[in-house]
Amino acid sequence: MSETKTEHFADRLLAAVEAKGSPVCVGIDPNIDMMPKEFRTDSDDPMEQLQRVSEFCADVLEIVAPHVPAVKPQIAYFEQLPGPQPFFGLSLYSGVIRAARKLGLIVIGDAKRGDIGSTAAAYAQAHLAEKDAADAVTVNGYFGADGVRPFLDAANETGRGVFVLVRTSNPSAGTIQDFTDKDGRTLFEHVAGHMAELGGNASVGRCGYSCLGAVVGATYPDEARRLRKIMPRQIFLVPGYGAQGATAADCAAAFKDDGTGAIVNASRSVIYAHHRHPDMDWKQAVEKATKEFAKDIRLAVYTK
Amino acid sequence: MSETKTEHFADRLLAAVEAKGSPVCVGIDPNIDMMPKEFRTDSDDPMEQLQRVSEFCADVLEIVAPHVPAVKPQIAYFEQLPGPQPFFGLSLYSGVIRAARKLGLIVIGDAKRGDIGSTAAAYAQAHLAEKDAADAVTVNGYFGADGVRPFLDAANETGRGVFVLVRTSNPSAGTIQDFTDKDGRTLFEHVAGHMAELGGNASVGRCGYSCLGAVVGATYPDEARRLRKIMPRQIFLVPGYGAQGATAADCAAAFKDDGTGAIVNASRSVIYAHHRHPDMDWKQAVEKATKEFAKDIRLAVYTK
Repeated sequence: MSETKTEHFADRLLAAVEAKGSPVCVGIDPNIDMMPKEFRTDSDDPMEQLQRVSEFCADVLEIVAPHVPAVKPQIAYFEQLPGPQPFFGLSLYSGVIRAARKLGLIVIGDAKRGDIGSTAAAYAQAHLAEKDAADAVTVNGYFGADGVRPFLDAANETGRGVFVLVRTSNPSAGTIQDFTDKDGRTLFEHVAGHMAELGGNASVGRCGYSCLGAVVGATYPDEARRLRKIMPRQIFLVPGYGAQGATAADCAAAFKDDGTGAIVNASRSVIYAHHRHPDMDWKQAVEKATKEFAKDIRLAVYTK
Repeated sequence: MSETKTEHFADRLLAAVEAKGSPVCVGIDPNIDMMPKEFRTDSDDPMEQLQRVSEFCADVLEIVAPHVPAVKPQIAYFEQLPGPQPFFGLSLYSGVIRAARKLGLIVIGDAKRGDIGSTAAAYAQAHLAEKDAADAVTVNGYFGADGVRPFLDAANETGRGVFVLVRTSNPSAGTIQDFTDKDGRTLFEHVAGHMAELGGNASVGRCGYSCLGAVVGATYPDEARRLRKIMPRQIFLVPGYGAQGATAADCAAAFKDDGTGAIVNASRSVIYAHHRHPDMDWKQAVEKATKEFAKDIRLAVYTK
């Protein structure tokens, strides 16, 4: 079932960013309560509800595809969808991946999987080696190298990528990730150094970046600058823009001076933009939000 | 779709342990290459392969149910099963949960989910609030309190449990989890303290334990003893026995002197015991391994 890709993930991602002119990614987080009224149904039939979610996701992909290089479906929202049996909503997750790739989008599966080596290999098989797997997947690095290496091996084999959590964007992230050693080094810097070493030994693409990247929240720009130095070969996936409060200037801190090295994600502020523009057709609202997001990040990154 | 249980998870788990006479849990990790030859098929049809995996899991549950209080299906192995579409194998994961509960077993879903608050709530809905959800789920605490609280809230509401990763059993765990502050405190002790505080405010059952427990690998018994003091109200889920090298005496370190406070898991060494007993009927081999496992832990814990 595994598929071999010849082109390196980082090269593909950078080429896609260049083609679209902005290093951004739209998060696909299907939440029935937030979808436009056009997709609401009074039916209790879970298949009917799933059908509406599927249509909403397909429409969002069509709207954003001309403007952004990548999308990031968040698997948690698909796992919890209603259905005839638990986890049936994951069929939509796979459908979103397939539809996005057909539209020429790079797909980052936001699954934050992670376990000990033998189990990590099973996750890597499911999320990176299958034909219909995403182009990259997010991974939790709490297990250390032997929990990440199976994902990295699968990524190397299939031309895919891995983004390891380093600094997350949520309010309580610091209670764990700011834990500091006697030399003043934080846990997230320690994880960054460890993963940079692991990724440095992995294949690096023509562009100079590894297929092992890092999740670095935009809500902490000073930390992003420090991490940029610790992880020179890592592409940063940057959540936190928009609904979580980070500005485009905050996000720019994750990039190198040449404007490469990161991709900024926005989810709710883009795909549910109709809530901010109740007078507008929902599709127009999402397109407007997508274009503004892409432009804001482009300006902040390429003119910093 | 949510279900309200009146009895507290910790009380249910302790009652089940007492009824079966041993604080053990069997891991259900379906791996086609390791299953007995009776379940092998030459067919390329994924539905045929899935059917065999389903039969194997059902048989294993029947064999272990009289001897152990709990099982722990590892969702990674179900996510990577073959099927007509990606993640179709999760229908078997739900099937295992249902079948195990019918047999009176407590089910710990080993999913190691974790994300920022709003996304953690989606995972909590999928893994703890649905009618057919497991009795407890494992969670990665790298996000801090706001990533764990949605799971804890769902657990409190539904009489279910959460086990947060504190010290994992894999070889490279220490590269991250042994990161040490200026006072000599390790990251895993810091996480333990943080989670004990979070769990302490949550409802504690009649037995004195919280519905927020901790994963504490048996491969580091000295550390389990230290953690036992930091987390007096937490039930420890203890992986690492058997295939990963920990002895019954190592596992006993995770328990209080009264023999409560932990449940020891073994997966491969039990469900694939036929590899060690090639002359024996596979069911007899698994039953023998289950009974020996339960007896070894019972003796080590109750006579320490």
